[in-house]
Amino acid sequence: MNQGQLITLEGIDGAGKSTQLTWIKEFLQRRGITVITTREPGGTSLGEELRAILLDNNLTIHPETETLLMFAARREHLDKVILPALERGDWVVSDRFTDASFAYQGGGRQVKKIKLEVLEQWIQGRMQPDLTLYFDVPVELGRQRIGAINSTDRFEKEQGDFFNRVRAVYLQRAHEFPDRIYRIDASQSFNEVQAAIRRILETTLFSEPNA
Amino acid sequence: MNQGQLITLEGIDGAGKSTQLTWIKEFLQRRGITVITTREPGGTSLGEELRAILLDNNLTIHPETETLLMFAARREHLDKVILPALERGDWVVSDRFTDASFAYQGGGRQVKKIKLEVLEQWIQGRMQPDLTLYFDVPVELGRQRIGAINSTDRFEKEQGDFFNRVRAVYLQRAHEFPDRIYRIDASQSFNEVQAAIRRILETTLFSEPNA
Ligand SMILES: Nc1ncnc2c1ncn2[C@@H]1O[C@H](COP(=O)(O)OP(=O)(O)O)[C@@H](O)[C@H]1O
Ligand SMILES: Nc1ncnc2c1ncn2[C@@H]1O[C@H](COP(=O)(O)OP(=O)(O)O)[C@@H](O)[C@H]1O
Ligand SMILES: [Mg+2]
Ligand SMILES: [Mg+2]
Repeated sequence: MNQGQLITLEGIDGAGKSTQLTWIKEFLQRRGITVITTREPGGTSLGEELRAILLDNNLTIHPETETLLMFAARREHLDKVILPALERGDWVVSDRFTDASFAYQGGGRQVKKIKLEVLEQWIQGRMQPDLTLYFDVPVELGRQRIGAINSTDRFEKEQGDFFNRVRAVYLQRAHEFPDRIYRIDASQSFNEVQAAIRRILETTLFSEPNA
Repeated sequence: MNQGQLITLEGIDGAGKSTQLTWIKEFLQRRGITVITTREPGGTSLGEELRAILLDNNLTIHPETETLLMFAARREHLDKVILPALERGDWVVSDRFTDASFAYQGGGRQVKKIKLEVLEQWIQGRMQPDLTLYFDVPVELGRQRIGAINSTDRFEKEQGDFFNRVRAVYLQRAHEFPDRIYRIDASQSFNEVQAAIRRILETTLFSEPNA
């Protein structure tokens, strides 16, 4: 039996990840693929407990602690959800994965990159997503789209500088891993973004024989 | 100003750590030292939330996830409690620290030692406790002492084999780090254990000039 594929969606809040997630799922299902959609941090009962802690505005958490918690949640996510699904031959679409740790903890919180690489290696070994769609929007546009949200979480309350650093790391990684990470201009209309995703999925995932 | 010292207490449940902790605190206070007592996992508000998750009998947690959570709690503990106290010149006595991760996650859960060493380096660098008192008791005696506990947590419910592996790692580490870790025969009476602790504290911490 074929191994399933892991597709991850990345980008700052308001980039349009959640909006396109459902469409990606349906696109794959129309090809006869069994698809699981999930998110980080979260995706397991432990992970959702950790998500609540991580987003809790009333907690001050050291950036390195935050990083360890993200990877703890991810370890569980891999063990309980992602790897079993891939082994069954199902596909997994995850709203965020390890690139988000490089962008948010590394770029945003300025945790040293080598520390993130150590944890990535610790929990993933050589395992990487098969495809990462990076939804790139200017920070201001993302902020406008999520609009006047009343309750902001521990990340959303950060200022523009934070998100500019997050975006800079995402862009840098898209440049560093061009075979895996595809940058999408997510400032375009819904339909244009969808068309870009479709082209990427068709060329990267369905162009090989027997795929 | 002098830097404070970190003393850690290690050993399986029922070894007598909590019983002696108060006495150690008072012994140090009589020497004019300001002492903070704390515990792991825990010691901070985040740490206590993680402790509740880690000890929750209804959760199944992958051994590597458990390990990452322990180190996440420890990172916060160092940042919020231990390091600020030591910098003020206060002493810290902690009921468990990193040796417990080697013993429980490494020995008990059989997480690879190199993975623990990587995390130890990640959060501590070269920092180590100044003194570790290892309360050594046979697994059966520890179990008898804690007696017929009604509610057992995720660790206490483990079988004897688990705790024999935990003890074996503690013994091995006492052997490997003889300048830091002192093994105490904790199967002795309360007074004998106390006398052993007193001798160790006096020779290791108070024998140098200006100490
Ligand atoms: N291409 C787009 N053009 C305009 N608005 C969009 C577009 N994609 C998403 N949105 C809107 O932006 C907001 C945030 O989208 P969402 O998918 O929740 O972003 P994310 O999950 O990346 O934070 C939603 O209100 C959504 O309807
Ligand atoms: N030296 C000792 N001899 C007999 N019983 C002891 C001794 N030290 C502790 N105990 C008892 O054993 C039980 C467990 O001790 P405790 O200090 O809570 O162990 P730990 O904190 O290492 O789990 C307590 O009921 C305590 O009174
Ligand atoms: Mg979203
Ligand atoms: Mg105790």
